[in-house]
Amino acid sequence: MTRSRVSPDGKIAGRDVSAKLVIIMVGLPARGKSYITKKVTRYLSWQQHDTRIFNVGSRRRIAAGMQPSDAAPKKDATGVDGRLQAASIRLNGGTAPGADEPTALDLNDSKPEEKTSASFFDPKNSTARALREKVAMDTLNELLDYLINGEGAVGILDATNSTIHRRDLLVQKIREREPKLGILFIESICHDRHLLEANMRLKLSGPDYKDKDPVKSLEDFKARVKAYESAYVPLGAHEEERDLQYIQMIDVGRKVIHHRLKGFLSGSIASYLTTFNLSPRQIWITRHGQSEDNRLQKIGGNSHITDRGHCYGAALYNFMTQKRQEWLIEQKDRVAQSTFPPKAGDDTPPYPEIYQELEEKNFCVWTSMLHRTIETAEFFDNDDDYDVKNWEMLNELNAGSFEGMTYDEIAVKYPHEYQKRSADKLNYIYPGLGGEGYLSIISRLRDMVREIERVTDHVLIISHRSICRVLMAYFMDLSRDHIADLDVPLGMLYCIEPKPYGYEFHAYKYNEPAGTFDELPDYKPGKTTDRNN
Amino acid sequence: MTRSRVSPDGKIAGRDVSAKLVIIMVGLPARGKSYITKKVTRYLSWQQHDTRIFNVGSRRRIAAGMQPSDAAPKKDATGVDGRLQAASIRLNGGTAPGADEPTALDLNDSKPEEKTSASFFDPKNSTARALREKVAMDTLNELLDYLINGEGAVGILDATNSTIHRRDLLVQKIREREPKLGILFIESICHDRHLLEANMRLKLSGPDYKDKDPVKSLEDFKARVKAYESAYVPLGAHEEERDLQYIQMIDVGRKVIHHRLKGFLSGSIASYLTTFNLSPRQIWITRHGQSEDNRLQKIGGNSHITDRGHCYGAALYNFMTQKRQEWLIEQKDRVAQSTFPPKAGDDTPPYPEIYQELEEKNFCVWTSMLHRTIETAEFFDNDDDYDVKNWEMLNELNAGSFEGMTYDEIAVKYPHEYQKRSADKLNYIYPGLGGEGYLSIISRLRDMVREIERVTDHVLIISHRSICRVLMAYFMDLSRDHIADLDVPLGMLYCIEPKPYGYEFHAYKYNEPAGTFDELPDYKPGKTTDRNN
Repeated sequence: MTRSRVSPDGKIAGRDVSAKLVIIMVGLPARGKSYITKKVTRYLSWQQHDTRIFNVGSRRRIAAGMQPSDAAPKKDATGVDGRLQAASIRLNGGTAPGADEPTALDLNDSKPEEKTSASFFDPKNSTARALREKVAMDTLNELLDYLINGEGAVGILDATNSTIHRRDLLVQKIREREPKLGILFIESICHDRHLLEANMRLKLSGPDYKDKDPVKSLEDFKARVKAYESAYVPLGAHEEERDLQYIQMIDVGRKVIHHRLKGFLSGSIASYLTTFNLSPRQIWITRHGQSEDNRLQKIGGNSHITDRGHCYGAALYNFMTQKRQEWLIEQKDRVAQSTFPPKAGDDTPPYPEIYQELEEKNFCVWTSMLHRTIETAEFFDNDDDYDVKNWEMLNELNAGSFEGMTYDEIAVKYPHEYQKRSADKLNYIYPGLGGEGYLSIISRLRDMVREIERVTDHVLIISHRSICRVLMAYFMDLSRDHIADLDVPLGMLYCIEPKPYGYEFHAYKYNEPAGTFDELPDYKPGKTTDRNN
Repeated sequence: MTRSRVSPDGKIAGRDVSAKLVIIMVGLPARGKSYITKKVTRYLSWQQHDTRIFNVGSRRRIAAGMQPSDAAPKKDATGVDGRLQAASIRLNGGTAPGADEPTALDLNDSKPEEKTSASFFDPKNSTARALREKVAMDTLNELLDYLINGEGAVGILDATNSTIHRRDLLVQKIREREPKLGILFIESICHDRHLLEANMRLKLSGPDYKDKDPVKSLEDFKARVKAYESAYVPLGAHEEERDLQYIQMIDVGRKVIHHRLKGFLSGSIASYLTTFNLSPRQIWITRHGQSEDNRLQKIGGNSHITDRGHCYGAALYNFMTQKRQEWLIEQKDRVAQSTFPPKAGDDTPPYPEIYQELEEKNFCVWTSMLHRTIETAEFFDNDDDYDVKNWEMLNELNAGSFEGMTYDEIAVKYPHEYQKRSADKLNYIYPGLGGEGYLSIISRLRDMVREIERVTDHVLIISHRSICRVLMAYFMDLSRDHIADLDVPLGMLYCIEPKPYGYEFHAYKYNEPAGTFDELPDYKPGKTTDRNN
C-alpha cells in the first residue's frame, strides 16, 4: 500500500495521466482475447485500478441498427453473481471482429438477427466501411474520455486490430489527444492444435453454432479462421521500430514476449499474464474451525481452536479427500467420452496430455501462520497426499490496538472509531501500530493471487474472514462496495474451478451434526447481516 | 514468508529436489551474460536461496595448466565490499567461451599467460577437444553435486553453450542424474548498436585490451564476435519442440521472451529480469532524522522527529538538490567528451538517447508510512521537483509485544527473548501479534527491490534501520551472516549508482554542526558495535 500527495489512497490519481494506460488488444477471433481481457480487467479492478473494456464490435452493431443481443456493450464487470459472470463471459466469448476486418467473414454473420444487415458487412460497401472506421474511432474516443476526463486508470480497446494500418491510426489518435498516456498492445496467438480445438469447442457450444450440425459448423468455422489469417499481421518489427510497448502471448502462457515494457501498470499486467495456465484443477477457500476467541467474539488474536473447531478440521479433511477422488473420476470420464467435433455441452479443456498427469496432481493446503488455521489443517498435515504450507500473507487483518477486543467493547470505548469503520469499512484502517485495512489486505494478497493462478495443483486455502473476502472478491469479480461486507461465515466452503470461459463456482455449508458438507445450489454471495462483521 | 513441515524457515528444502533449478546460460561473449548471472545470483541469495555460479571457462584454464589469473573460479559472491564486488564483476566481465566454441577465437587468447598454451585451443587438437568436453561435464557434475548432495537451491552454468549439440548433452546429463531437477535456459542477445558499443567499451577498458591501441583492439574484437556468431544457434524452435523452459533477453530488458516457465523460482527470476534497465540514475538510502523514541532509546513506535531530526531533513534536502545538479552536469560532460573507440577509462553507458532525457529525469523520494520518515521528507514534499510517496513496505520491522520498549528493559524483563535474539538476530522473530524478523523483511522488500530496479528515475529512500540493512544487503551482496548486524547509524547516507558492470557505491556521513554531508572515501560497511542494534 502506498500513498502520496496526489493519491492519498494509493490509487492512480485522476490527474496523473502519464500513469494511465490504453491497452489495445490484437488477435484473430477465438484466440482467447476475450478471456485475457476479462481476466486483466478483473485483476486490475480488484487491485482498485478503475478499468473498463471498450468493445468495438458491439458498438458497430448498434450503429448499424442491429439488435445488440449478446453483443451488448460490456460494462465494467462488477456483478456479484459468479455463475452469472461465467455465463456472461461465455456469451461474450467470441470477440466481435474489429471494424477493419474482412467482415464478410464476420464470426457472428450466421445469427438470424444479423443476417438482415448482411450488406453492412460487404467489403465493397464503402459507406459501411467509412461507418465502421468511424465507430472504431468513436469507441477509442469514448475510452480516452474515460481516462482523460473520467476516473479511469486503464481502458482496454477490445477488437481484432489485426492490421498495421489500424494500429498506426489508433496510436496516432491517442497521441493527438494526450501524448502522455501509456499505450500497451496485448496480442494472443495460438499455434497449438489442442488449444485451437478447445477454442473451437467453445465456439461450437456457444451461441453462434449451438443448435447446428457440429461437422458443418466446424468446417465453416475453420474456413473463417483461415480467411482471417490472410489479412492479419502480428505484432513485431513494425512496433519494435517504433518503440511501442507490447505483450505477445503464444498458446496462453506457453510462450510470452514482452517488448519495451515500462511503467508500473504494464509491469503488473505482464507478471499477471505470465501466470496463466489452463490446467484443470480446483481451488477451495474456507475459514478455520471455531477458535477460542470466536467463542468469546474477540477479534484478531492468536487463540487455539475449540473441540468444535477440531471436528470441523476432520470433516473438512474427509470431504476434501472424497471430492478430490470424485473430481479425478469425473475428469477421466470426460476425457474418455470427449469427441471432436464435440457433442453439445462438451467443453473439454485443451492439452490432453494434462489428463495423463491427473493422477499425479498434488493437493496443496495453505494456511496462515496463526494457530487457528494451522490446527484446522492438522488432519491434512498427517497425510502425505497433502502438502501443507503456512503463509504469513494469509494472516488475518491486523486490528492494531483493537486486537483481542469485541466489537461491543470497541463501540463503547471508541465510539468514534466504531462509527468510522461502520461508515466505510473498505477504507477504514485500524488504529495503532501494524493496524491494517481492507486496502492493505488487497495489496498483500496480490502475490497470493498470482501464486494461485500459477500453480497447476489443487489448492485448499484455510484462512480468515477478511482474507477470504478479498480472495473471493478476486474470483467473483466483486465491486469495491461489496468486498468488505461479503458474508463469509465460519463453516462455508467455496470451490472455484478455472474453465476456459471463466470460473465455475460452487458453495458448500458445514453440516455440523452430520460432520459433512451440503452443497448450496444457486448460491449467491450475499451481504453480511452482522453489522459488526 | 512461508513455512512447512519440510521447510520450517521457508527456504527451498534440501530434500525437495523438484523445487531446485539448474540455470544454463546461453549467448555470445560480451552480451552481458556475466552481468545477468551476477545479478540473478545476488537477488536469489538475498532472497535466501542458496545460489552459486559454476564457470566452465575458468575450470578449463585450470585443467589446461594455465594461471587462473582473472579466470579464477567464481565463488558465491558474499563479499562485504561493494567496490571490490564491482571490480570483480568488471574483471570477470568477459565470460570465457564454452568448450564447444571456435576456440581459436577465444576472447582471452591475447593474454600473455595463455598464449603459451595456444595449442590447447586449436580446434584440430582432438585431445584438447576431448579435454574441453570433459571439463564442461565435470563442471556440470560439480553443479549437480551442489544441488543434489549439497545445500544448493540454484546452480548457474556460466558458459556460452551456443550450440544445440552442447545444450542437448547438458540436458541429457542432468536428466540422467536427477530427472526431477528443473532446467532453465537464460540467453542474452544484443542487436542494439549502442548496447554492443557499450559492451565493447567495457571490453576495451577491461583486462584483455587495457594497454593496447584502441583502434586495433576494436577491430580485433569485432572480428572475434563475427566469427563466434557463425557457429551460434540461439534458443528457439529446438527448445520449444522439447518443451524446455527458457528466458531470452534481447537488448537487456527491451524485449524478453519467456517459454514454458513453470515453478516458483523460474517465475521469480523472470519477473526480476524484466525489471532490468541501464538508465543512468542514482539510488540514495538513509534513515529518518532523530525521533523522540530514538532519544529515549525505545524501539518501534510511531513517534515524531525532534528538532535535530528536522535539521537533518533540511540538510538532506539541500545536499540532494546539490548532488542532483552535480550529477546532471557530470553526465552531460561525459557524453560530450565520449569518443568511439573510447579512451582509457571511458565506460559511457549505452543508449545515448537516454542522455537527451537527463534534464527531465524525475527524483522520487520514498518514505515509510511512519511519522519519523514522512517528517524527514517534509522539505522534499514542499518542492514540486521531487515526487514524495509513502510506502507501507518501508515501515520498520514490527517488534510485536516489544514495541515501545528499550533493549535494556527487554533484557531485564524477558532475558530469554533477549538471549534468543542476541544468539541469532537474522532468524529471530519478535513475539506477539504482528511481530516480524529479518526474514519477514527480506520477503516484504522483494517487490520494493524490483521497483527500484524498474524505475529509471533517481530514488531517495528514507526509511528505518532494519529496512536499510536489508536493502543494503541486496545492493552490496551481503551474506546472510552480515545482514542483521550491518552498521547503519542515523545520519549515514548511501549512494548506489547502477553501472553496466555492477553498482558504484559511495557513503556520506551527516556533519551536524555544518548541516551538510561529508563523503567517507573507501567506506566499507562494518558490523554494528552496539550489541543491541
